[in-house]
Amino acid sequence: MSKPDNLPEMEYRFLGRSGLQVSAISLGGWLTYGGHVDREGTYACMKAAYDCGVNFFDCAEGYAEGESEKVMGEAIKKYEWKRNDIVISTKLYWGDAFSNSKVNNRGLSRKHVIEGMNQSLERLQLEYVDLIYAHRPDRHTPMEETVRAFNHLINTGKALYWGTSEWNADEIAQAWRYADKLGLIGPVMEQPRYNMLERIQVEREYAHLYREVGLGLTVFSPMRQGILSGKYKNGIPDGSRFAQTQVEFIAGFWKQTGKAEFQAMADTVSKLEPIAERLGVKQSVLALAWVLANPNVSSAITGASSQAQVYENIEAVRAYKKLTPEIMKEIDEILNNKPPTVTMRY
Amino acid sequence: MSKPDNLPEMEYRFLGRSGLQVSAISLGGWLTYGGHVDREGTYACMKAAYDCGVNFFDCAEGYAEGESEKVMGEAIKKYEWKRNDIVISTKLYWGDAFSNSKVNNRGLSRKHVIEGMNQSLERLQLEYVDLIYAHRPDRHTPMEETVRAFNHLINTGKALYWGTSEWNADEIAQAWRYADKLGLIGPVMEQPRYNMLERIQVEREYAHLYREVGLGLTVFSPMRQGILSGKYKNGIPDGSRFAQTQVEFIAGFWKQTGKAEFQAMADTVSKLEPIAERLGVKQSVLALAWVLANPNVSSAITGASSQAQVYENIEAVRAYKKLTPEIMKEIDEILNNKPPTVTMRY
Amino acid sequence: MSKPDNLPEMEYRFLGRSGLQVSAISLGGWLTYGGHVDREGTYACMKAAYDCGVNFFDCAEGYAEGESEKVMGEAIKKYEWKRNDIVISTKLYWGDAFSNSKVNNRGLSRKHVIEGMNQSLERLQLEYVDLIYAHRPDRHTPMEETVRAFNHLINTGKALYWGTSEWNADEIAQAWRYADKLGLIGPVMEQPRYNMLERIQVEREYAHLYREVGLGLTVFSPMRQGILSGKYKNGIPDGSRFAQTQVEFIAGFWKQTGKAEFQAMADTVSKLEPIAERLGVKQSVLALAWVLANPNVSSAITGASSQAQVYENIEAVRAYKKLTPEIMKEIDEILNNKPPTVTMRY
Amino acid sequence: MSKPDNLPEMEYRFLGRSGLQVSAISLGGWLTYGGHVDREGTYACMKAAYDCGVNFFDCAEGYAEGESEKVMGEAIKKYEWKRNDIVISTKLYWGDAFSNSKVNNRGLSRKHVIEGMNQSLERLQLEYVDLIYAHRPDRHTPMEETVRAFNHLINTGKALYWGTSEWNADEIAQAWRYADKLGLIGPVMEQPRYNMLERIQVEREYAHLYREVGLGLTVFSPMRQGILSGKYKNGIPDGSRFAQTQVEFIAGFWKQTGKAEFQAMADTVSKLEPIAERLGVKQSVLALAWVLANPNVSSAITGASSQAQVYENIEAVRAYKKLTPEIMKEIDEILNNKPPTVTMRY
Repeated sequence: MSKPDNLPEMEYRFLGRSGLQVSAISLGGWLTYGGHVDREGTYACMKAAYDCGVNFFDCAEGYAEGESEKVMGEAIKKYEWKRNDIVISTKLYWGDAFSNSKVNNRGLSRKHVIEGMNQSLERLQLEYVDLIYAHRPDRHTPMEETVRAFNHLINTGKALYWGTSEWNADEIAQAWRYADKLGLIGPVMEQPRYNMLERIQVEREYAHLYREVGLGLTVFSPMRQGILSGKYKNGIPDGSRFAQTQVEFIAGFWKQTGKAEFQAMADTVSKLEPIAERLGVKQSVLALAWVLANPNVSSAITGASSQAQVYENIEAVRAYKKLTPEIMKEIDEILNNKPPTVTMRY
Repeated sequence: MSKPDNLPEMEYRFLGRSGLQVSAISLGGWLTYGGHVDREGTYACMKAAYDCGVNFFDCAEGYAEGESEKVMGEAIKKYEWKRNDIVISTKLYWGDAFSNSKVNNRGLSRKHVIEGMNQSLERLQLEYVDLIYAHRPDRHTPMEETVRAFNHLINTGKALYWGTSEWNADEIAQAWRYADKLGLIGPVMEQPRYNMLERIQVEREYAHLYREVGLGLTVFSPMRQGILSGKYKNGIPDGSRFAQTQVEFIAGFWKQTGKAEFQAMADTVSKLEPIAERLGVKQSVLALAWVLANPNVSSAITGASSQAQVYENIEAVRAYKKLTPEIMKEIDEILNNKPPTVTMRY
Repeated sequence: MSKPDNLPEMEYRFLGRSGLQVSAISLGGWLTYGGHVDREGTYACMKAAYDCGVNFFDCAEGYAEGESEKVMGEAIKKYEWKRNDIVISTKLYWGDAFSNSKVNNRGLSRKHVIEGMNQSLERLQLEYVDLIYAHRPDRHTPMEETVRAFNHLINTGKALYWGTSEWNADEIAQAWRYADKLGLIGPVMEQPRYNMLERIQVEREYAHLYREVGLGLTVFSPMRQGILSGKYKNGIPDGSRFAQTQVEFIAGFWKQTGKAEFQAMADTVSKLEPIAERLGVKQSVLALAWVLANPNVSSAITGASSQAQVYENIEAVRAYKKLTPEIMKEIDEILNNKPPTVTMRY
Repeated sequence: MSKPDNLPEMEYRFLGRSGLQVSAISLGGWLTYGGHVDREGTYACMKAAYDCGVNFFDCAEGYAEGESEKVMGEAIKKYEWKRNDIVISTKLYWGDAFSNSKVNNRGLSRKHVIEGMNQSLERLQLEYVDLIYAHRPDRHTPMEETVRAFNHLINTGKALYWGTSEWNADEIAQAWRYADKLGLIGPVMEQPRYNMLERIQVEREYAHLYREVGLGLTVFSPMRQGILSGKYKNGIPDGSRFAQTQVEFIAGFWKQTGKAEFQAMADTVSKLEPIAERLGVKQSVLALAWVLANPNVSSAITGASSQAQVYENIEAVRAYKKLTPEIMKEIDEILNNKPPTVTMRY
């Protein structure tokens, strides 16, 4: 499948207060690359994304037991992309797949941060990553140990910037506290879940951090695992090769939230359909565009499993500019989950 | 000898306040590996321990003139253990064996810390150790020089954590004072002697340090070199291949403590026999379990010289949970050496 | 062409407050080496300069899309100059030529500073440069990120000193503020444009910095791209191989300043002719000498495109000593652009 | 010549407050090794010294234009001495021999400190030296630049300790001031000239530094270039292979001090002869012993040009213990140059 003619030009945003620029749409390997998308499929998605101006590719040691990193690394090599043209990330926390032991291969101890990084770089066939994330907070390891360990990665040239994923605001503030105290580098970005249905952390909890430490966001799950595309409004579509996976996914979801809540979400999503139609975009594009409309979002990480999906996602770069204050208000009324504004007076 | 079926599952403990986890029972090379236990015997003990979940193997440059490190390094290679699954330590202070000169190869000068580390890593065939210990305090080297030298090892990737062995509480506090002043990393663990007969340092002297710096303990000599197993209550057992060594050992002991004191200890130990019987464990297991019952102990380093002994030691992981407050009180009354509690009010 | 007999001995000056000495006249690659001067021509100029005592050769990643660095690197190799005898600089900011992407290859983010440095060293075939410049201020990257990135280059041995080019005085002061706060190394030199027609930044704006941080200056464009040589007083000379380039240059200049302003400058320059004649030097030598007469100038970077020009420039080392206070006053009256003196009272 | 039977055992002293131990007598390469003593002669001296327990060998980039370092490096290799058994020093300042240029190869700029160190290590065939000295103060380079550069050598593992040679007390204090301010390592030792005839710097000027920073001394010229051996009391001895050198030496000396002053020194030295005789040692041994009697001296660097001289020097280790307070007083009365005691009250 070749690149459509009418795609918008990619937009690049600074990663929070840092001097690094990432494409507003990026590609991530969670649940897909190295997993249920095969090698050739991954290569094709990455190539399509790169050709659309995507420069940021996101990974983690924990994705598909390291396969995700391997396949991404192979694609980078295969297409001979210049290292300085791309922004590669990975995340450390769940290194259990690479061990026989139940301990020390998970979390943010100095041991796992250093050993995990070396193993990730080997799988990626890279000398360094641009971004290294602490994939979760580790409440068993002292914050100072973790802050020092990530700075060690930066000092030894194995990573250029470090950040967090799914940390609480106060944990990020604690990390900065130790960085400041010791003259070290603090976390410049956070990777939270963010979409129309899950707003509170990005819109309220982190509010002080955008101003105080210039936190950048690379958000994942912008479509709430497909729910926001509207594809579940009539149940699970048949015949698709992912049907089985989706059955399991929804079953898992139900377990988490209850069937009633899932249905309530699907209903809300249905109400967004007319807005998408009015803007002339698919519902999935609207969902992604809505995420990009938040200026604190540096990049929305998408998990496309085909070139077509990649191209579709790129549409959001144009679509989000159509989201006028009026339309945003309309959407807020449908969603009915807008957190109260945080007022900062000090 | 194959692993018994009914062994308890290994327990892992954080090394003090750090994010590193070590098995509650660990294996050390003092007086054994590279010494009177031969190569094959060492390999077998290490394999048996590893198969029981032991992840921490302790060594020192001074053990068996470096042979201990060599044999341990060979075993790690032989069994192809993953580096991230194991915690390897060594200690620097007595490097005299590797020199013609009487000076600069002993102690904690920057010269010996750096040179000793490089030589240890070569013998171990490793790129780094997890833990590096200052094997004794060096009262001739300024504390600042030593703290800087161990941090140099960490910064250059040759060690992940540093600690001390048989330092006084105030020396550890001094090391932290310099670490704090210079923004460096302080010692996270201490390796003291600790057993039913030698309690004062661990239970009283270090008390402030558990709270103030989160000091972790990897204790050695949990059976007071076998005395607590009860095997000397009727004199020295015959026919064992270690008899001769033991004769010398006890002779040495007598020189240190006097024959009367040795007998007094043996008598005390005898009184513990009924308790062990009541709990259904050997006396040696009781002694080890008693050490593990102290929550400030991260790991008890054992010096098994056969697979059977390894397996026996593992029993302590289950046994220590049977040590109720009542039994602990009973033991304290027999031992009659419990230090007064330290009350911290500031 | 061989070296004339009567050239003055080179003068060396400290680079601001630093302990490094650079030749008062240096050779730079802007618009010339790797560009419209061919390989052999560049080699010849560098050799001629070196033989006259020039020890400082200036370059930038952005000159001639990297060709300038390549040709300079080849010359250093070809003539087997000892690394300790020469001072090599390059500058980072415009790395766009080495990328497909529009982002992250320009500016002073940690990513570009580190990646740009590695690529420059490869082109130069050197392990390190003596001086690394931030070629422009990057107002999108936090100053702290930039200061840390340049210190990383120094700590990893890829550069010995760092500085700025065409930064504002307050930006330089901010860089020092972060360096001081973090115990890092501040920028020791600035590379501004400085000549008889452009004086305000060097003579007024930076005035506090010479005293407060000991800023050194390596100035470029000492002849205002040839205007100060007097060669444009009668229009553009014919027949020279650069005529076409010069037509474009002047056309470009006119666009920038307006034709009237260009003519006014040419008129002013004409009035300097009698002074040059009185001193027995060419007008271009007078212009360069005037730059050297400023004691805050560590080195004047010239862009000779022939050996003859190199030798001519060297004359300025002798000529500037003839610039008595009376002659300087006469020149100031002609130029009529002397900034008021900065008085520092605090 | 084989080692005499009755030589005293070597004494080792801590280098000031540091944890490093150096032999009280050491061997230095000034004016000898790589110079007028040939290769085989140097090897023999070094071997003889090593066999007597000398562990400290002193060199400098400036000695014999680098030949001194080369020959010492060869001897270390030839005799296969263990690196941890010996203490090797060199000094940076006069690197002019390794350059065509008059600038940047002398002094203590970051450029020369780093480049000079790399070149010295190459000549010595070593990965690191134990001690690196700033061979003179460099009043053109800011102290902060020099302190940072020497710390860079330590951080990159090229040297273990740094110090100074012939610096003023206030310059050493300034270096410590910057080290303290920046959390860096200060100079731990100074290498001054010290002998019976030149006492003021060691005995008075540095007095505060022994207490305040624990300064160690490795003193050179303990016999004032042979004058204190008494060999010039009757003029210059004939027939020796160094006669010609000595003629020049004394001529040079005269230029420096005047013939009268030289004669006055020779007369003073003559008066020490009876004391040497009383103690049963040569006058040269008395001179060296007198230096060792100062407890602030860590090592006296001797420049023996034959094995016999090496063995003779070792005698001083025994001889200095015979210097009772009464004898010291008698010597002071002859020398008549004892500086007043420094009283420190703050």
